[in-house]
Amino acid sequence: MSESAPVPIGIVGASGYGGVQLVKLLQDHLKVEIVYLGGESSAGKPFSSIYPHLNSVDLMVEPIDLDLIASKCEIVFLSLPNGLAWKIAPTLLEKGCKVLDLSADYRFANLETYQSWYGGERTDKKIAATAVYGLPELYRGRIANAQLVGCPGCFVTASLLALSPLFKQGLIVPETAIIDAKTGTSGGGRKGSIHLLLAEVDNSIGAYGVGNHRHTPEIEQICSDLAGHDVKVQFTPHLTPMVRGILATVYGTLRDPGLVREDLLTIYKAFYRNSAWVKVLPSGTYPQTKWAGGTNLCYLGIEVDQRTNRVIIISAIDNLIKGQAGQAVQCMNLMMGWEETLGLPQLSFYP
Amino acid sequence: MSESAPVPIGIVGASGYGGVQLVKLLQDHLKVEIVYLGGESSAGKPFSSIYPHLNSVDLMVEPIDLDLIASKCEIVFLSLPNGLAWKIAPTLLEKGCKVLDLSADYRFANLETYQSWYGGERTDKKIAATAVYGLPELYRGRIANAQLVGCPGCFVTASLLALSPLFKQGLIVPETAIIDAKTGTSGGGRKGSIHLLLAEVDNSIGAYGVGNHRHTPEIEQICSDLAGHDVKVQFTPHLTPMVRGILATVYGTLRDPGLVREDLLTIYKAFYRNSAWVKVLPSGTYPQTKWAGGTNLCYLGIEVDQRTNRVIIISAIDNLIKGQAGQAVQCMNLMMGWEETLGLPQLSFYP
Amino acid sequence: MSESAPVPIGIVGASGYGGVQLVKLLQDHLKVEIVYLGGESSAGKPFSSIYPHLNSVDLMVEPIDLDLIASKCEIVFLSLPNGLAWKIAPTLLEKGCKVLDLSADYRFANLETYQSWYGGERTDKKIAATAVYGLPELYRGRIANAQLVGCPGCFVTASLLALSPLFKQGLIVPETAIIDAKTGTSGGGRKGSIHLLLAEVDNSIGAYGVGNHRHTPEIEQICSDLAGHDVKVQFTPHLTPMVRGILATVYGTLRDPGLVREDLLTIYKAFYRNSAWVKVLPSGTYPQTKWAGGTNLCYLGIEVDQRTNRVIIISAIDNLIKGQAGQAVQCMNLMMGWEETLGLPQLSFYP
Amino acid sequence: MSESAPVPIGIVGASGYGGVQLVKLLQDHLKVEIVYLGGESSAGKPFSSIYPHLNSVDLMVEPIDLDLIASKCEIVFLSLPNGLAWKIAPTLLEKGCKVLDLSADYRFANLETYQSWYGGERTDKKIAATAVYGLPELYRGRIANAQLVGCPGCFVTASLLALSPLFKQGLIVPETAIIDAKTGTSGGGRKGSIHLLLAEVDNSIGAYGVGNHRHTPEIEQICSDLAGHDVKVQFTPHLTPMVRGILATVYGTLRDPGLVREDLLTIYKAFYRNSAWVKVLPSGTYPQTKWAGGTNLCYLGIEVDQRTNRVIIISAIDNLIKGQAGQAVQCMNLMMGWEETLGLPQLSFYP
Repeated sequence: MSESAPVPIGIVGASGYGGVQLVKLLQDHLKVEIVYLGGESSAGKPFSSIYPHLNSVDLMVEPIDLDLIASKCEIVFLSLPNGLAWKIAPTLLEKGCKVLDLSADYRFANLETYQSWYGGERTDKKIAATAVYGLPELYRGRIANAQLVGCPGCFVTASLLALSPLFKQGLIVPETAIIDAKTGTSGGGRKGSIHLLLAEVDNSIGAYGVGNHRHTPEIEQICSDLAGHDVKVQFTPHLTPMVRGILATVYGTLRDPGLVREDLLTIYKAFYRNSAWVKVLPSGTYPQTKWAGGTNLCYLGIEVDQRTNRVIIISAIDNLIKGQAGQAVQCMNLMMGWEETLGLPQLSFYP
Repeated sequence: MSESAPVPIGIVGASGYGGVQLVKLLQDHLKVEIVYLGGESSAGKPFSSIYPHLNSVDLMVEPIDLDLIASKCEIVFLSLPNGLAWKIAPTLLEKGCKVLDLSADYRFANLETYQSWYGGERTDKKIAATAVYGLPELYRGRIANAQLVGCPGCFVTASLLALSPLFKQGLIVPETAIIDAKTGTSGGGRKGSIHLLLAEVDNSIGAYGVGNHRHTPEIEQICSDLAGHDVKVQFTPHLTPMVRGILATVYGTLRDPGLVREDLLTIYKAFYRNSAWVKVLPSGTYPQTKWAGGTNLCYLGIEVDQRTNRVIIISAIDNLIKGQAGQAVQCMNLMMGWEETLGLPQLSFYP
Repeated sequence: MSESAPVPIGIVGASGYGGVQLVKLLQDHLKVEIVYLGGESSAGKPFSSIYPHLNSVDLMVEPIDLDLIASKCEIVFLSLPNGLAWKIAPTLLEKGCKVLDLSADYRFANLETYQSWYGGERTDKKIAATAVYGLPELYRGRIANAQLVGCPGCFVTASLLALSPLFKQGLIVPETAIIDAKTGTSGGGRKGSIHLLLAEVDNSIGAYGVGNHRHTPEIEQICSDLAGHDVKVQFTPHLTPMVRGILATVYGTLRDPGLVREDLLTIYKAFYRNSAWVKVLPSGTYPQTKWAGGTNLCYLGIEVDQRTNRVIIISAIDNLIKGQAGQAVQCMNLMMGWEETLGLPQLSFYP
Repeated sequence: MSESAPVPIGIVGASGYGGVQLVKLLQDHLKVEIVYLGGESSAGKPFSSIYPHLNSVDLMVEPIDLDLIASKCEIVFLSLPNGLAWKIAPTLLEKGCKVLDLSADYRFANLETYQSWYGGERTDKKIAATAVYGLPELYRGRIANAQLVGCPGCFVTASLLALSPLFKQGLIVPETAIIDAKTGTSGGGRKGSIHLLLAEVDNSIGAYGVGNHRHTPEIEQICSDLAGHDVKVQFTPHLTPMVRGILATVYGTLRDPGLVREDLLTIYKAFYRNSAWVKVLPSGTYPQTKWAGGTNLCYLGIEVDQRTNRVIIISAIDNLIKGQAGQAVQCMNLMMGWEETLGLPQLSFYP
């Protein structure tokens, strides 16, 4: 199918959930070849010793040596904790790599906002100014021309795909936007946290970061960009007893009380006309997170409550695919001039 | 232990989840004795043939014969699908029983509202007018004097315990109230519905009844009563992959932008000062549904977001206890002049 | 990739879990095209009205009309409850279709055994005698030449892949074979059974069919065939709180007390040398069902306990893929002379 | 209620799952009062800061000071990791406390066996020789007279209650005993282990410690004691996606091929005639772990497969109650001359 040689790519931080998801997607991608897997704690081990069931991935985890990475890879995915990518990306870019970062490091136009939420003294301001926000449905053209992309994560992706048409077209009273979001536990990463134990999360739902979660400024940045003025939103994440999935239930009061559900459906379908990975559901259908599981899709259910004059958008994604690794692959496809859908799964294994 | 003879009670509809929960609670209650279990489909079977692990409950399921019930029981719990209690309760009351109904039949002051959501041609208007709404935290005194109590269910209980101080004291702009609620699957009952199968619900969260769920008018009825004027709320239920539990995340815009979290904590603690079953959590702590599991407690976490001028209340209960059977037992305690806490569990088995 | 036109295939019984899994796999298969979906209860509806998230499958569910099916399809998959396939398959075969049956109907060489466990008066004995048992790892050659294949299900596949080398090579004392098997709930099908509700199965494991499950004679039939003499096995299935997956823990006493783990590993690797879908794990590694989830793989972990002189084999598959739909696709590949691995997934989405 | 003053008790290691379960059970126990909670990592914190929902337990976690403990407590429960109790218990006993240990330290009659599996140079041999094995169903009398009890854990309790009648009465060929056991994840404790994360365990079952788990010698010690000669058993634990519960499926070949299911039922019912916490289920009924959840009960299902001449016993308990904290409370009741059932729950919250 691919006539030319596959493009060599590398993944830094391959052993976490985001990393292992990237490995799976890129293994199945016809135009690339994984030539480097990097990690600190697992360096020197075969990847299959961490995940015995992925023994078809015949690669060692190597130390993070930037010269080595740049000599081997045309494209590099950084799947590291926040605060590490900005120390690595500038060198990789200078050596000619394209870089896709899955952390928060390159998501903020204003580095002061970044620093106030994530800390650190950023010394890469010039490079950071060239980063493009990696949400293809909003910034397709800019991503196509970027060398450095900062991909949004799971909560923000689910929230923005629900909110964007509302803010872009001025449909709601801005200060009424509320996002009540529910996540599976894999979003917390592959680390031994007590609150992510099955014995703790099972049969339990709770909110956290109420009123002050650090995804709030990121959502507001993009909504403000779309609205053309400063916007504040309410964002409340909840941890729920499932592995994968984000469901965001988004509320807003309509500016025009005459709008009905079918109007909104028309607007959303038009907005996402060219977005293969967003599915606006038929009238009266709301998504289940499981529908999106194992795919790069975002499902949107649209409702208008005429009693309260409110629009309610329900958005479902797989947090590790459209909310993380799949989004990065989608961005890579754009950066390389390939079909945006290449190598990305569309049908979940159901149930 | 109790000096006087135990009060004989009966349960009509004992084999569903609400019924089996009632059986468990009333078995452990020192002042009553279960003398009658009634059901249509299981009549003639020992109760322990339905639930082999409850073989210490040595009773047969009997047909629903009102004379028999009234001759045996001083108190009768009706745990039946909506639309059946109003055909039974008047006769039982006439024969001298106290009646606690767990269905929607006696929750509405306005029977037209009931009929428009639940159907049926109500012929019991006079009796219905004597029914008291069985939420003890709001109507303790009236319940104590009632012969007929219509107990609210799980979603409404969690929602009202979060909202009541706000409406009673006029703290929020009424039309801004939003309830984003999450339930376990046992709320759907013990029936073979495909959407309640483990294979369907596991790893899946979805909304339903968006904008038009029939609990909405019930919540509005009580909020309007508290506010002294008509109130509309937004209520969105979600089905989640857990057995028990309701988490309601409630949003409202504060009328007075000067109020802070500690003010709200003070107000809530005062409001529930005499309510042993409501626990207002310390500043900065939000509840997990698991904390309430197996108990009659409602946990409330309180937050004020000063950026958005919004109050956010998070409310957690066990849907089958405080949201159903436990609430009815709490009402019974009041009706009988007993301690409100009698026979009800306060500590969950954790984890 | 495929130069020639895709082969038209049909699925009878497309709306159950086996059916929807077949649809997913065959949609992704490059050499076939689904041209017919049949079902009784859903006839006349678009397939996407049953599964809104599979709206890329643009087909109606049609009535089960054998002339129509045969006129459209070269290959037909029957995914129906036991006892229906044998009324349909003979006609389809006569009209020239290749038939793969996922039920028990064509798994038994001896129809009396079938009838004593499944009932019915079989009138298709001649056709049944031509059926081949669809476990490719054992009967690859016969399947390649078959027109009619009776594919084994999930429990039996996991059990036989663990047991076959032991019986084929006479390694264990035959009457010591015990299979303690654990299944997810999707094996029970997409029907409203109370014991498959999340509220019932969650946090609960139990055995069923102890000593008399109807998969026992099927396992014994194949083990006897391999051993060359009549064999009896102990088979105990357990229902567990997960959606997908079978884990079979198989015990047997070694005839030769000198054999050690490494010997068994060598024997198993040799036995499955040409079986791409069976992975014998490294020494000391035992499989998790999740490793096999979403793939057509069977993972085998091998242990010898020299204290007790027992071999213990642990076998993990995805019950709906290698245990059902994937197995049928693997058989189809053989029947059509294609690569055995074509169109079947090998890497799970982890976690 | 109790005429005399409650007995003061202490718990060392109160913040783990075993400890919090002890706290819950002893809070509800009418004859004791918790006067001391000890722990290293949480010393100085209020217990309710670890478990906010247990705020009715108004105690600080204190440092482990043996003089202090002995001065306050008549009975001390040790709920610590293996290898710590034997450094503490001798001093507490010397100072007059009764000690119940929940770890492995005092379960072995032969300390060499202990040391070969758990390590350490035991210096308390004299004291250890006075310890009684805390399984009341077997050693009721000895426990009643003990000052030091080593309580068995979850796997061993479920296994022994299934096996004991078989070995005591010589019903099976000893070397044929196989225990295939399934556990929930809370048995792994409240610690941040990756393999206990919901994201890892959910939808996954796997075996571990195959052929060499350290509960094997403990089971063998008691079975040998019952049989009157050395016995070897096969024990295979599996981790499963549930919080609580052990299901042990036990196999053995009958010495007398004439025995049928009803014979075994008679034998088991007689064996456990005086054991209120063991329920032998009716013929043809097998237990679900959920039935035992939240109770101190062990449910036993009995089957004989006459085709294979094998007895199959299925045993279900709550791993944290009958398998840990409840067992210790049951032993305490015996040591104090109280009713064996005092303060222990018998009815689960179902579902």
